[in-house]
Amino acid sequence: MPYVVGVDFGTLSGRAVVVRVADGTEVGSAVHEYAHGAVERALPGGRRLPPSWALQVPQDWRDVLREAIRKALAVAGVEPADVVGIGTDFTACTVLPTLADGTPLCEVDGLEDRPHAYPKLWKHHAAQGQADRINALAAARGEPWLRRYGGRISAEWQFAKGLQVLDEDPEIYDRAARWIEAADWIIWELCGVETRNVCTAGYKGIHQDGAYPSPEYLTLLDPRFAGFVDKLRHPLSALGGRAGSLTARAAALTGLPEGIAVAVGNVDAHVTAPAARAVEPGQLVAIMGTSTCHVLSSDRLASVPGMCGVVEDGIVEGLWGYEAGQSGVGDIFGWFAANCVPPSYVDAATAAGVDLHDHLSALAAAQPVGAHGLVALDWHSGNRSVLVDHALSGVILGQTLATRPEEQYRALVEATAFGTRMIVETFETAGVPVTEVVAAGGLIKNAFLMQVYADVLRRPISVIGSAQGPALGSAIHAAVAAGHYPDVRAAAAVMGSRGPEIYRPEQKRADAYDPIYADYRELHDHFGRGGSRVLHRLHARRAAA
Amino acid sequence: MPYVVGVDFGTLSGRAVVVRVADGTEVGSAVHEYAHGAVERALPGGRRLPPSWALQVPQDWRDVLREAIRKALAVAGVEPADVVGIGTDFTACTVLPTLADGTPLCEVDGLEDRPHAYPKLWKHHAAQGQADRINALAAARGEPWLRRYGGRISAEWQFAKGLQVLDEDPEIYDRAARWIEAADWIIWELCGVETRNVCTAGYKGIHQDGAYPSPEYLTLLDPRFAGFVDKLRHPLSALGGRAGSLTARAAALTGLPEGIAVAVGNVDAHVTAPAARAVEPGQLVAIMGTSTCHVLSSDRLASVPGMCGVVEDGIVEGLWGYEAGQSGVGDIFGWFAANCVPPSYVDAATAAGVDLHDHLSALAAAQPVGAHGLVALDWHSGNRSVLVDHALSGVILGQTLATRPEEQYRALVEATAFGTRMIVETFETAGVPVTEVVAAGGLIKNAFLMQVYADVLRRPISVIGSAQGPALGSAIHAAVAAGHYPDVRAAAAVMGSRGPEIYRPEQKRADAYDPIYADYRELHDHFGRGGSRVLHRLHARRAAA
Repeated sequence: MPYVVGVDFGTLSGRAVVVRVADGTEVGSAVHEYAHGAVERALPGGRRLPPSWALQVPQDWRDVLREAIRKALAVAGVEPADVVGIGTDFTACTVLPTLADGTPLCEVDGLEDRPHAYPKLWKHHAAQGQADRINALAAARGEPWLRRYGGRISAEWQFAKGLQVLDEDPEIYDRAARWIEAADWIIWELCGVETRNVCTAGYKGIHQDGAYPSPEYLTLLDPRFAGFVDKLRHPLSALGGRAGSLTARAAALTGLPEGIAVAVGNVDAHVTAPAARAVEPGQLVAIMGTSTCHVLSSDRLASVPGMCGVVEDGIVEGLWGYEAGQSGVGDIFGWFAANCVPPSYVDAATAAGVDLHDHLSALAAAQPVGAHGLVALDWHSGNRSVLVDHALSGVILGQTLATRPEEQYRALVEATAFGTRMIVETFETAGVPVTEVVAAGGLIKNAFLMQVYADVLRRPISVIGSAQGPALGSAIHAAVAAGHYPDVRAAAAVMGSRGPEIYRPEQKRADAYDPIYADYRELHDHFGRGGSRVLHRLHARRAAA
Repeated sequence: MPYVVGVDFGTLSGRAVVVRVADGTEVGSAVHEYAHGAVERALPGGRRLPPSWALQVPQDWRDVLREAIRKALAVAGVEPADVVGIGTDFTACTVLPTLADGTPLCEVDGLEDRPHAYPKLWKHHAAQGQADRINALAAARGEPWLRRYGGRISAEWQFAKGLQVLDEDPEIYDRAARWIEAADWIIWELCGVETRNVCTAGYKGIHQDGAYPSPEYLTLLDPRFAGFVDKLRHPLSALGGRAGSLTARAAALTGLPEGIAVAVGNVDAHVTAPAARAVEPGQLVAIMGTSTCHVLSSDRLASVPGMCGVVEDGIVEGLWGYEAGQSGVGDIFGWFAANCVPPSYVDAATAAGVDLHDHLSALAAAQPVGAHGLVALDWHSGNRSVLVDHALSGVILGQTLATRPEEQYRALVEATAFGTRMIVETFETAGVPVTEVVAAGGLIKNAFLMQVYADVLRRPISVIGSAQGPALGSAIHAAVAAGHYPDVRAAAAVMGSRGPEIYRPEQKRADAYDPIYADYRELHDHFGRGGSRVLHRLHARRAAA
């Protein structure tokens, strides 16, 4: 009875899950917290970091391999000898400079006190100036790859972060033989050979139509940046492929058998699609947590305004993979619960023994659509899709002296649903059909929220069957890499999982939402597309203060 | 040593203050709560009232005369024999139907169970349909008085409330020989003769240029309404005049000497102007409480868009009295404190032994102008001036995941200050200069808020010296009626009172507020003047649900 191990490297911890190859049953899992978490204030040695920085420590990732896999096997009661492969997924773009042999520069003697020697976590936001230069030059030159990213390269991605290293610590830049996604670095640790997966190369590394940005373009950014691509260049590996075999050293680290298959690296959101059995054209997976990431495979290539990226074979081989996102979803509800709810509600939730979100949701659910007379914009941490504008902020209209906390909460839930509808409609308008919506992530536990989404989208929404979608997705890739399935689509069909719930739109509520969505669109376009620049002025004032 | 008594009839209680005529010193005061408060759910006999109704019970007002005056004299240690006059002020428009002798219809045998027989409190809001008809017909006919009220007669005023009685209980309408403001009815109780003061006749009774609306106009509203003005008609009395002398019956009721001067009736907001020593042209008094009322005397008559009314001799004789208002001010802060502040803040305020408003204000005051990146519209209970639109509602822009409760609180305080600036600028643009701003009312205790107002208005703001401005203002009118001063302006100069504080604008903060006020104006005009009708759509949805 063969098993595979999937390991999901998150922002603050890593999770290992042991999965039966035959049917995808998850038989055991374990979590290991990173000792250093997200390094945002000071390096481990004490050196202070500037604002907006976010780093990680590679040893924390190795510790997950050593601790979580053993624990998951023990919980599962599975013998290591029965494990035939390992797959991994990572946050992205989380990227680091290494020597030619893969040694992280922060582990090189004498460099442990240099901030730029450390991996930059996905949410490192200190390279906005570099991203602005990258975008301005690309737009001016009409670089063809720009439209594959909704017209905007993110400050979170490989080129912006790399250019920041060059700008601020050119010595580290020069010492970095390789500039590599953590998603690929962890594979190097496991099988001893460097690989580069098509997913992060495409979505985070501006690799399109077989090439990175041209030396001419890079030279114009900075003559010293002309050779940046040499730090990236490597044959790309398809998702689901076998990167190599587990080395003796990695076998000792993990407790797994030497020589088993190691799958090509992957990204947490993208790997969730096969876990949700949603890798066919038109199946959109919304991974709904603090933020929401949408991944969608399609047989059509189109320019969709405001998407995060479209990459050939970017989710599964043979299809175009689209990614879109909402910057703030669960974290908006979290902000509201922590900052905007009075003691009587907190006490009532405590007395009822329920979470405050469940309490607010239950109260909100009792009201008819539109009764609160509110409409909100879900831009508390900016707008990723379809506006790609992080200077935007939250808006709420319609408050009266009778407005209650659950009504504002509901308006925020609805705003995020409207934001999702905007993304779905943008895909369809651009010629990329969305035929099915599948939800994953922590928010699927909230039945009230899921019903609002179904009503607003006017579509049924099914949900993933696993509570640990990314790790299951990684395990599916391991099974393919180990040769037990011909490809990821075949493995997903067997090992992927759907929950029993399907949230179906209710006609009357859906009809009632249409005019409120029209109001959302009016405000969306007014404040987000140039009708008023007031949100940008507010942002500038906040930043200046 | 002569004294006067001022009695302020509020929404839930009445307050008597004993004042020294020579210098305005308040030597004693007492409050008496109405036994029936505001009658909003059911008549004293149990009959249920429809939504939006608000009535009062006349006996409650008599009880104030009997209880509060005696107590105030006792507290003051003043002999009744030393009292030379009594003045009163009332909420308005609070209006009632009476027999020809002044007996309230609700006290007539057999009518105690008829809702329309009771006084309608100022905040009775069930006559909106009648107000809409009044306005539509007046606009269609180009009635000249309409512009004296910013283009709109309120549902709170005498004609709308009277027309509602006709519509819904024509028998009560027919039985009502008189339709009289409580401000005038209480004078009838005190001196046994009917009077009508110019203030309520002008601001609430559409009396302009010596006449009420014409019979032709009223006939078109409803032929049965043609004679409505007969229920109002009576020679008008100037403010500060002597309505008559205290009757033996009223002397027995109050404990005051028979025959002393009874001043002409007046309104709480307007009577505050002399109490604040602010009755000269250009002196604007803002009475800042749950809502804010602005009264301003001027030697110029102008059409000021969105004011509540302009009345000749309406505040003091010889000047045009302007009234404007903000529907929601303190009640917006109250709503926020009760509904939008988390337990940790409530606990911190309790631990510090301070009121939650003071706690939020102290935290808010620590931030530089604009640092919160927020801007709000203060329309949670609609907009009285300058938009005259109660279908509007609150708006806040700029929320991020880092937005804290004190920041939203500050944005709301600022929004009400912007609303005041809008009113002041509207007066000046229309050719009515505002040369000084004096604040009264409960909010003057909040030094943070007062400083925000000074900075936003770019003007110094002084404050009334009395904690019971209306009652002091009534006492000033009593002193004039008793012949101790030639007129209200002369009495106000001696008996009126200013506090020691003057809030002065700080140049840097005032400069920083200008662009935020520009943002407020942009939103104000966009959502309030037709750029977007979204707030009206939200209102309609809320009303329909």
